[in-house]
Amino acid sequence: MSVAVYLPNPDRCEDWCVMLRELLPGWTIEPLDAVQDPAAVDYAVVWRPRTGDLARFANLKATVSIGAGIDHVLADTSLPQGVPIIRTVGADLTQRMREYVALHVLRHHRDMPAMLAAQARGAWFQPVVPPATGRRVGVMGLGNLGKVAATTLAALGFQVTGWARTPREVPGVEVHAGVEGLDAFLAGTEILVNLLPLTPETTGILNAGLFARLAPGAALINAARGPHLVDDDLVAALDAGQLGQATLDVFHVEPLPKDHRFWTDPRITITAHTASLIDPGTGARIIARNLHDFDRDGTVADLADAARGY
Amino acid sequence: MSVAVYLPNPDRCEDWCVMLRELLPGWTIEPLDAVQDPAAVDYAVVWRPRTGDLARFANLKATVSIGAGIDHVLADTSLPQGVPIIRTVGADLTQRMREYVALHVLRHHRDMPAMLAAQARGAWFQPVVPPATGRRVGVMGLGNLGKVAATTLAALGFQVTGWARTPREVPGVEVHAGVEGLDAFLAGTEILVNLLPLTPETTGILNAGLFARLAPGAALINAARGPHLVDDDLVAALDAGQLGQATLDVFHVEPLPKDHRFWTDPRITITAHTASLIDPGTGARIIARNLHDFDRDGTVADLADAARGY
Repeated sequence: MSVAVYLPNPDRCEDWCVMLRELLPGWTIEPLDAVQDPAAVDYAVVWRPRTGDLARFANLKATVSIGAGIDHVLADTSLPQGVPIIRTVGADLTQRMREYVALHVLRHHRDMPAMLAAQARGAWFQPVVPPATGRRVGVMGLGNLGKVAATTLAALGFQVTGWARTPREVPGVEVHAGVEGLDAFLAGTEILVNLLPLTPETTGILNAGLFARLAPGAALINAARGPHLVDDDLVAALDAGQLGQATLDVFHVEPLPKDHRFWTDPRITITAHTASLIDPGTGARIIARNLHDFDRDGTVADLADAARGY
Repeated sequence: MSVAVYLPNPDRCEDWCVMLRELLPGWTIEPLDAVQDPAAVDYAVVWRPRTGDLARFANLKATVSIGAGIDHVLADTSLPQGVPIIRTVGADLTQRMREYVALHVLRHHRDMPAMLAAQARGAWFQPVVPPATGRRVGVMGLGNLGKVAATTLAALGFQVTGWARTPREVPGVEVHAGVEGLDAFLAGTEILVNLLPLTPETTGILNAGLFARLAPGAALINAARGPHLVDDDLVAALDAGQLGQATLDVFHVEPLPKDHRFWTDPRITITAHTASLIDPGTGARIIARNLHDFDRDGTVADLADAARGY
């Protein structure tokens, strides 16, 4: 079998090729830009492919997204239709996401940004905060990652609500569904965690109208995709005090441009798309197993639904 | 019944008196410094009493520590012998401590101090860290607070070891006991959490010899008492790279003096004894119930062992 690999960073692309060659002996694994015979390529393993990259492969059997989301693949306007897309999810990635969500919800809950600011001015600062049992946290998106994040927060003692496109059961979590459930989900939410897939329906969902329905001074954590957020609306909500703080892991352009105003805003904590960073070691094992399973009989657990967008 | 209340801050002392009067109708509750007839005082409710404060009360039936530790009561060299000491513990306080420990272990685990430093210089920083399942965290002290902290960390996925004076069972936690178990406990520990009671045996236990036995670059979290730590040894271990970071909630002198070098050390995060801060609302309910139980028949769940020191 022949596999073409693409990531924007050529060094990281080479790292992934090395790992996949070890795990799939007998397969041809090469960087997409080095492919000599496009018609021979069976599979493409990609992160943020360029428009037209995949259309070159006339006999492509499946595309593998190096990540849980497939939005970066669907963004290719010349994407071959009907070719299955396989997501990359696994215990390691959900573990990393639950750590990230627990960490940043606790940081906002316990007022750490204000504590660090107090230390910087040498002030003995004892904020009055409720225990987690008196704090309402809302998780938007209850897929693989969202469900685990929500149950982790509930186990830490938080009052957790969840919001998803369709009704579902998550133990210990009060679930609201669909557009009709959004108001009840947002009302009283003091810390909002976004883990939605990026689709036309969810693009720009973190906007002024939504922020206005949260508890005053709420904190926002966006660990999904940059285009979920309307950047100007975030700054306006922080200026108005409607939001108190935000932690962002994802941005419209990544890496976040040097001159972006988010970098120096004391109300915004920036992490560099590390919430659930896939390392080639763990990620390649998941991808090799998925390719092996799919190649055997066309079935794989992590098949995405391109029409639905995730 | 007559109760004398003492806290170093007179305003906070008055707050506690107000709360306790509401919860113990018919009892006389007054600030210790306002007591006219010391022989009539049945109970003292105190945080850091001054030497001699309690010896004035010839007919004292019990002393209540406003806190889980009793070291601040035992520090009184003229403390009346044989008077029972009642600790203040409860679900609210263990909840707050588990939040604090989870937050700060996750902060060090996910390299947040370095991430914030990267943001300050506008750098897109993606540190390589293992998932929690590959990170060894050690909890010293497995009393009420330590046990809950350890099981909370295990539920988040960490490899958790615990150390206590005597052997005990904590689900999901590898427990080492006594002086003979300390080496095995410390070896490989990457994040160390101190929740020991302060006794003559544990004073100064966080010292150069102990730091040298941890994994190189380990993080220290002290949420117990300031005198557990040898301040100079901490700075030397940070300078040598033996420790990478520290988060301190407690200090030899509190509030931490304005000119203390810890304030400006970028490797040290300071919180103002807020790990498990007792608010008068919740704390007074626990204390009123304990006083009520003790006064009825001399039994109460949270009786300390003065000889043992906790």
